[in-house]
Amino acid sequence: MRLSRYFMPILKENPKEAEIVSHRLMLRTGMVRQQSQGIYSWLPLGKRVLDKVNKIIREEQNRSGAIELLMPTLQSAELWQESGRYDAYGKEMLRIKDRQDRPMLYGPTNEEMVTDIFRSYIKSYKDLPLNLYHIQLKFRDEIRPRFGTMRSREFMMKDAYSFDLTQEGAVQSYNKMFAAYLRTFNRLGLRAIPMRADTGPIGGNLSHEFIILADTGESEVFCHKDFVNFDIPGEDTDFDDIAGLKSIFDKWTSVYAATSEMHDEAAFNAIPEEDRLSARGIEVGHIFYFGTKYSEPMGAKVQGPDGKEHAVHMGSYGIGPTRLVPAIIEASHDENGIIWPASVAPFDVVVINMKAGDLACDEACETVYAALSKAGKDVLYDDRDERAGTKFATADLIGVPVQIIVGPRSIASGEVEVKDRKTGARETMTVEAAINRLAG
Amino acid sequence: MRLSRYFMPILKENPKEAEIVSHRLMLRTGMVRQQSQGIYSWLPLGKRVLDKVNKIIREEQNRSGAIELLMPTLQSAELWQESGRYDAYGKEMLRIKDRQDRPMLYGPTNEEMVTDIFRSYIKSYKDLPLNLYHIQLKFRDEIRPRFGTMRSREFMMKDAYSFDLTQEGAVQSYNKMFAAYLRTFNRLGLRAIPMRADTGPIGGNLSHEFIILADTGESEVFCHKDFVNFDIPGEDTDFDDIAGLKSIFDKWTSVYAATSEMHDEAAFNAIPEEDRLSARGIEVGHIFYFGTKYSEPMGAKVQGPDGKEHAVHMGSYGIGPTRLVPAIIEASHDENGIIWPASVAPFDVVVINMKAGDLACDEACETVYAALSKAGKDVLYDDRDERAGTKFATADLIGVPVQIIVGPRSIASGEVEVKDRKTGARETMTVEAAINRLAG
Repeated sequence: MRLSRYFMPILKENPKEAEIVSHRLMLRTGMVRQQSQGIYSWLPLGKRVLDKVNKIIREEQNRSGAIELLMPTLQSAELWQESGRYDAYGKEMLRIKDRQDRPMLYGPTNEEMVTDIFRSYIKSYKDLPLNLYHIQLKFRDEIRPRFGTMRSREFMMKDAYSFDLTQEGAVQSYNKMFAAYLRTFNRLGLRAIPMRADTGPIGGNLSHEFIILADTGESEVFCHKDFVNFDIPGEDTDFDDIAGLKSIFDKWTSVYAATSEMHDEAAFNAIPEEDRLSARGIEVGHIFYFGTKYSEPMGAKVQGPDGKEHAVHMGSYGIGPTRLVPAIIEASHDENGIIWPASVAPFDVVVINMKAGDLACDEACETVYAALSKAGKDVLYDDRDERAGTKFATADLIGVPVQIIVGPRSIASGEVEVKDRKTGARETMTVEAAINRLAG
Repeated sequence: MRLSRYFMPILKENPKEAEIVSHRLMLRTGMVRQQSQGIYSWLPLGKRVLDKVNKIIREEQNRSGAIELLMPTLQSAELWQESGRYDAYGKEMLRIKDRQDRPMLYGPTNEEMVTDIFRSYIKSYKDLPLNLYHIQLKFRDEIRPRFGTMRSREFMMKDAYSFDLTQEGAVQSYNKMFAAYLRTFNRLGLRAIPMRADTGPIGGNLSHEFIILADTGESEVFCHKDFVNFDIPGEDTDFDDIAGLKSIFDKWTSVYAATSEMHDEAAFNAIPEEDRLSARGIEVGHIFYFGTKYSEPMGAKVQGPDGKEHAVHMGSYGIGPTRLVPAIIEASHDENGIIWPASVAPFDVVVINMKAGDLACDEACETVYAALSKAGKDVLYDDRDERAGTKFATADLIGVPVQIIVGPRSIASGEVEVKDRKTGARETMTVEAAINRLAG
């Protein structure tokens, strides 16, 4: 992408309304724009990061055996009356009447709808286990949306729903998602710690929040330091291996970790003092097992091997991509801007032309841009008619992992500079060497 | 994907509520499910097709130089009051009040919002031309939604918006999208005919609908038969070549084509009778140039080379992916089911195990499934414990382009049958030959 033709509106000043660093940086870099209170547009740079986050989420959901569909944003109130949540949900539910005066709502979550889909088609235990997910917009009419897309009203959620004949099966489905989440957050460059959590309005009796540590976190969290060194399940994880998944779950729940709601001071104090970690955290995922809470009232039943009807045991599993993007920034930035983990960077590399219009610089930049694009890399080419200093600052600010800097002096001897955004390390090498380094 | 683990709820009976063949087949094959009137879930099989359609749309938008972002579904009423459309839009606009009693709406289209984004950042003609698009849900509260996702209330739209300093520039942007649309529909396996159209509530003075011919079409259309043979712009189309794009536009608008609203009986009758085509059509895309209709009242102005402020000239360009899927089915099916064009097929190939449980059949199927999956193909493996006849019917119904049929008799001599869904042609070959044929 040539920056001269791109739409990346960098702000010169730090926006006053932003209280936390991720919100500030997302506005500064033109990743998002607020359209109404708690409602955001994802501008092109932000959209690229969001797409990469979603791609990783999707790959790990699919790997675990979950199946993707797409439910609509608007739901009929009737479904929620069946489950009993229509009145209970309160003012966070955006209630709507259509032109026929039918009561509708903008889905804040999809337990009811997916249960309705399930009961319409699935009649036998032979079709279980089943895990259906979608990545779809949700709306929760929070009284105080804030921190940019970290806590917005219209937001994106990956929500998965598992269906099993028995509680035992449901716990296995829970363990699958548990492992999938560990893999997902790791690939996003985050170390997330699963913590026993309150089940809240979803209900149920087994629940974990996945929390990353950050000073700006909304929740206070307490855990054992060992989490930092626990192994992440590998790419070869067998999601049909019940015992293997259980051992992952057991390992990751073997030491103390809790949010303030679930905190047990005595248990925490039993940890040797040097191993205690008390900090603030950002919730980036939440998983629930809630048994027959929805299947019972909504009649989602299957015939079991005994010939009888059984209400299915369900779980739900949420990750918020539009919240993950700022969470990644909170975890990875410096005073010059964002430092993207390579897996979610909007571009893999930025080519900086220090003197656009200089024949040698232009030619070298075009060569690098063409070669790396052809190699399948996402390349941003800063071909603007701007001072070199402005270009360096922009490149640092938007946090592309690698910068290739082409200047008139070094290109005279056929060389460019390759800079690592994270470490700041610079290396001088030939154009060809730079291409070979980055095309791999 | 192993069918035994997939969620593809095939209906045994034709659903009574479906009036047209695409709606019937989408329900039969479990591609979609109605959740409320005119509001659909895309079940896994449908979601796969929708994703492939969106991918092609996106690739062709990007190729033409348009830049992707993502605007939200909910908009504030204020924006629409600025443009003057809030009151004018009527009952199709779903109006909402949030908990603070602020008037909102579910976007039926995004001219206002994108103009608001534009005016917030772009101040100089040097940043033009610009074309921003997104693929996002829309809502139009139609009094009579029907034909499944062909005319639903909540639907997906790719809408692009171009910004230029002058009318001349805007016409060039229009021609870019015109060529991009021809390429897009062609890659989707459709022959779409651009027809001069009424501009309707979007307003403006230049507009084309892209129409495919189908007996179930909502509009009556009249055109010259020559359209069937016109060349589609190639992959090497230069979207910076102003003259080249104009010649594509000129060619494709050189002979008569009009919807009934714009029909000129005399002009049509001037065509030799054997070249006249009068039929029904389905609108699959609509493009508009509307000048300063929104930029003027909303103050979207840039400084020109003359140092003065100019309201920008805009166009908008829509394609409905959730409507394209049924449109493709209307254009491509037979009495046994859907016949997907390869580019949008939910799976590239289906492996049919005629006798699941038979060792030789199972092994051959696993070999083919693994080899083709590894080659990057989307493979559906029908490993269900069902009669062969049921599996054949399912494969034909869901319209996967190629079937590899593995039966106990032929596998005894190491052979399988490869069937082309469209032609019905069958060929017997070794397992290895089948893999080589399809892995390419």
